[in-house]
Amino acid sequence: MAAKVNRAWRLVSRPEGLLKESDFKWVSEPIPCLSGGEILIRHIYLSLDPASRHFVREHETFVPPVELGQVMLGIGVGVVEQSRNDALRCGDVVQGFIGWQEYAVTKGGGLTRLPGDRPFPLTAYLAVFSHIGLAAYFGLLEVARPKAGETLVVSAGAGAVGSLVGQIGKIKGCRVVGIAGSEEKCRWIKKDLGFDAAVNYKNQPIVEALRSTCPDGIDIYFDNVGGQILDAALRFINMKARIVQCGMISQYNSDWNTLEPAFPHLINLHFNRARIEGFIWLDYEDKTPEALKDLGRWVAEGKLEYRTQLIEGLENAPGAVNRNFDGSNKGKLICKVSEEP
Amino acid sequence: MAAKVNRAWRLVSRPEGLLKESDFKWVSEPIPCLSGGEILIRHIYLSLDPASRHFVREHETFVPPVELGQVMLGIGVGVVEQSRNDALRCGDVVQGFIGWQEYAVTKGGGLTRLPGDRPFPLTAYLAVFSHIGLAAYFGLLEVARPKAGETLVVSAGAGAVGSLVGQIGKIKGCRVVGIAGSEEKCRWIKKDLGFDAAVNYKNQPIVEALRSTCPDGIDIYFDNVGGQILDAALRFINMKARIVQCGMISQYNSDWNTLEPAFPHLINLHFNRARIEGFIWLDYEDKTPEALKDLGRWVAEGKLEYRTQLIEGLENAPGAVNRNFDGSNKGKLICKVSEEP
Repeated sequence: MAAKVNRAWRLVSRPEGLLKESDFKWVSEPIPCLSGGEILIRHIYLSLDPASRHFVREHETFVPPVELGQVMLGIGVGVVEQSRNDALRCGDVVQGFIGWQEYAVTKGGGLTRLPGDRPFPLTAYLAVFSHIGLAAYFGLLEVARPKAGETLVVSAGAGAVGSLVGQIGKIKGCRVVGIAGSEEKCRWIKKDLGFDAAVNYKNQPIVEALRSTCPDGIDIYFDNVGGQILDAALRFINMKARIVQCGMISQYNSDWNTLEPAFPHLINLHFNRARIEGFIWLDYEDKTPEALKDLGRWVAEGKLEYRTQLIEGLENAPGAVNRNFDGSNKGKLICKVSEEP
Repeated sequence: MAAKVNRAWRLVSRPEGLLKESDFKWVSEPIPCLSGGEILIRHIYLSLDPASRHFVREHETFVPPVELGQVMLGIGVGVVEQSRNDALRCGDVVQGFIGWQEYAVTKGGGLTRLPGDRPFPLTAYLAVFSHIGLAAYFGLLEVARPKAGETLVVSAGAGAVGSLVGQIGKIKGCRVVGIAGSEEKCRWIKKDLGFDAAVNYKNQPIVEALRSTCPDGIDIYFDNVGGQILDAALRFINMKARIVQCGMISQYNSDWNTLEPAFPHLINLHFNRARIEGFIWLDYEDKTPEALKDLGRWVAEGKLEYRTQLIEGLENAPGAVNRNFDGSNKGKLICKVSEEP
């Protein structure tokens, strides 16, 4: 017997700066009966991502913006509780844009059914076998195409994506330097994940730190942060360096029309025949099955570790998502919406 | 009978800001007798390039810096007047790094012999069939790879490289918008060269001008200037856009460690899966013969026009090179060092 009420976060105003709980309204709404082709999903885990900040902007970023009044956009995993759709049955576990709500009624578009015989915990399907792992995998292997022996620097190196990027870099034979914002994070990526060096950008000048940890220069910089750290990396790029532009978290909460991050060393792209290239994991649909197979093998072999931080209860999502921005998260931030089946 | 005296500009101090004549010393020096394998070149035309500013920096850019006391680096064409080298004979005309001097004694490394039956004026071998034409050709065709119907924006669009880029873009079926700094230059690229639109960035706000001249967005931005114009272009880039980084003349005369050009819209690389890529014509040696053949055919067919501005006398080179920076040049700036053979 399914619940009759759905609780959801609807966007009511466009935030300035960080997301605030008051930008959303916590609503309880009746769940409609299913029409033909529809399913009812009970949401289990919601991924709390930095990209949430993009979704509430007025203008399109890489998805259409959430309109005022709409349920907040978000990727999660859930279980099918009712189905009038031949492709998805009750009990199936699905992954995709379920939204910041406890239940979703949908025709299943954009959802992926997870295998029934899952060898990994359900949270791994947000922390690794998801947009997170695919961003790390395609960004590093398709955009940067690392060669053994190259120096790879990754910012937000203890973050959900960055920690995977560094480990995949090690698997491919790179020398890996991670940049992170605490001693604990630096210890984790160096001791537990096997990065060759870690830089705590909060307690040392980033330019000097990169100079000393990258004596042979930088061949690949996997950028999750933008801003001054990107410019510092630009100082040390080698000939034919690749900068993978996966995000610029340092400016997500700013007004881009007035913001003035300084990139005086962008000109090194010219001198060093280097490039900065943006990408989105969504563009590699045809290579996704192979990527998920590789990621699964590496996790099973113990070569790819991840950690998750669980937030209990969807009602806490708006406050918790900002942990991505103040650095207080440790590992992939996931909101537990309901119990696993 | 060859001259016995060589006159040359030697670098004596590292300029701050624009190059000044006082950063060089005008010297008269005896020409040494040739050793085995050497040739004596009489310099005819010297290319005065924005990149001259790079060569006098303390640190390597894309060539090793000119050391204090050395003859200033520069690309030119000259004629062999004496030879003890089997590969080059008296009367051969050569192109390459001859330097800011009237005569050069060299073993011929890095020099290219021009064909004896040249169908074009000798200045064309600096204005088109040289680093200039090859930068336009490889930057557009190898880095950006234009498709017919795409919108190509080129800054310094009336400059030596930019004017060729726009015309090659038209040959390849692009819609071409040129940015230039005077009404005369805008008229030239639109009326004479066939650009679809021209923007005078000195008399209109660049963001609004790009918005109105690029209603379908920008697929390729060929950047010669950097700075605010680069950021304005970043606002309008389309999905999978390519920004070719050929130079950043707006910051050549600055101290890069203090400079803060603002690129708030760099994040659009991420959203639009776009890239900025630097390149140097020198990297495409294997494709150079084919490129020169194409460029020659297009000039012969009247599809590729160029204009040159001659400065008489090597003694005027240091003052004249800055015309590249204040925009007072019209076409490829060339210093006439001596008479054609």
